[in-house]
Amino acid sequence: MYQHTVHYYETDMMGITHHANYIRWMEEARIDFLGKAGFPYAQLEASGIISPVLAINCQYKQTSTFSEVITIEVKVLAVKGAKLSLSYQMTNQVGEEVCLAQSEHGFVTREGQPVLLKKTLPDFYQLLVNLQEEADD
Amino acid sequence: MYQHTVHYYETDMMGITHHANYIRWMEEARIDFLGKAGFPYAQLEASGIISPVLAINCQYKQTSTFSEVITIEVKVLAVKGAKLSLSYQMTNQVGEEVCLAQSEHGFVTREGQPVLLKKTLPDFYQLLVNLQEEADD
Amino acid sequence: MYQHTVHYYETDMMGITHHANYIRWMEEARIDFLGKAGFPYAQLEASGIISPVLAINCQYKQTSTFSEVITIEVKVLAVKGAKLSLSYQMTNQVGEEVCLAQSEHGFVTREGQPVLLKKTLPDFYQLLVNLQEEADD
Amino acid sequence: MYQHTVHYYETDMMGITHHANYIRWMEEARIDFLGKAGFPYAQLEASGIISPVLAINCQYKQTSTFSEVITIEVKVLAVKGAKLSLSYQMTNQVGEEVCLAQSEHGFVTREGQPVLLKKTLPDFYQLLVNLQEEADD
Repeated sequence: MYQHTVHYYETDMMGITHHANYIRWMEEARIDFLGKAGFPYAQLEASGIISPVLAINCQYKQTSTFSEVITIEVKVLAVKGAKLSLSYQMTNQVGEEVCLAQSEHGFVTREGQPVLLKKTLPDFYQLLVNLQEEADD
Repeated sequence: MYQHTVHYYETDMMGITHHANYIRWMEEARIDFLGKAGFPYAQLEASGIISPVLAINCQYKQTSTFSEVITIEVKVLAVKGAKLSLSYQMTNQVGEEVCLAQSEHGFVTREGQPVLLKKTLPDFYQLLVNLQEEADD
Repeated sequence: MYQHTVHYYETDMMGITHHANYIRWMEEARIDFLGKAGFPYAQLEASGIISPVLAINCQYKQTSTFSEVITIEVKVLAVKGAKLSLSYQMTNQVGEEVCLAQSEHGFVTREGQPVLLKKTLPDFYQLLVNLQEEADD
Repeated sequence: MYQHTVHYYETDMMGITHHANYIRWMEEARIDFLGKAGFPYAQLEASGIISPVLAINCQYKQTSTFSEVITIEVKVLAVKGAKLSLSYQMTNQVGEEVCLAQSEHGFVTREGQPVLLKKTLPDFYQLLVNLQEEADD
């Protein structure tokens, strides 16, 4: 589980975390999640594959602010073809849901050709399938 | 229509605009849209009402990068009770869709009480209803 | 002269523009300044030269906040060898100084070799020298 | 000593950490430094005192990029009247200096009156003096 402590510079004049920062925390948590699972993001890019974000979806449940510690749980929702979908559950220190989110990712070569994960990155594909099955339990 | 020129600092090492920035551009376009319609955001906050973002939804259609000019068209999708929903269509200089997005906003007092727009801010409510009818045409 | 309207997301919980944003505005103003002078930054990078920032210096004179329009005047302080120094004067709408800043820039090839501007980019070098002379008047 | 792992979203199209982020890391390290010394920043603001940044100075020695771990050592340079000066030494994982920086901070009431630290916040003042003496050794 990934943890992010809200920085002062992430707040806005409403006195709360500016909502755009949660999108960044999703990236932090995603990279941590894939790295811990054995597939560092740097390795993906080194293999000539880039992974643009195709869609983002955030439901803000509760505000957060400076110095709060947010725990982010990432799960694999789906993986097929050249696409990966993840979910994120963010909770604060007293266990309240702060934000629920989903993201969708493509996998393409530097020239923009879609990459079939199963074929081009079979180890990564199998890892994601296993993580999805764990999430389904 | 609001225009945003992509800043160098908004790109990432993939060579494209980092996806979290589109959320910020939505805010820029939204504030511009409400201001031009006659209801500056500062006026809203001055009247003791804050407007937290409840949900964000982005579909990234095409990448953009440094120095591109992105045009953002905002429309009112719905307004009722203490909630407002907006849509955003972002296009690049050659007219391609870059990002389609929606946002949902609440209206609450500084103490967190929901504000019925129709009752508390009748002028603002009527403005939003008119803008929604225009959007529906 | 470049103008930047302070965005809501650039404020922090102190109710003012977060100080790190001025560094970003310096970049916006610098790129605008060089572009208007006839040397777009994209052209520099296209020619295989990158320009890392070597030093930044900011004196914050007055706070600014959401929706204020900040005018930024850029001047060439010095250009020699593979280095360029610029100054920035930022003023608010009532003419008060908000921030005074300086930046220093290197010019290197993608392999990290310093680029002598006079030799490799004579047109750009001459432009900068002319701009510096204007600034000295 | 504070550590910051460079996030993907902190890089730019040059493939390196965008230089404005170092200013944010200084804030992270400063808040961590004061907190560990026994004076959490939130406590300062709760006591009705705000601390605007008066000046920032960064010398970039070496680039950094995604996933590098940057160690930041903060020291008290000076404390007198209503002003505090800090220094920052940032090094990468192989011990190279990445950035050297200084910052200057004021202390004012919410109404903008300067706060004499020695008089108004004697414990905080003494803490800073002690930290400065340590730094001088």
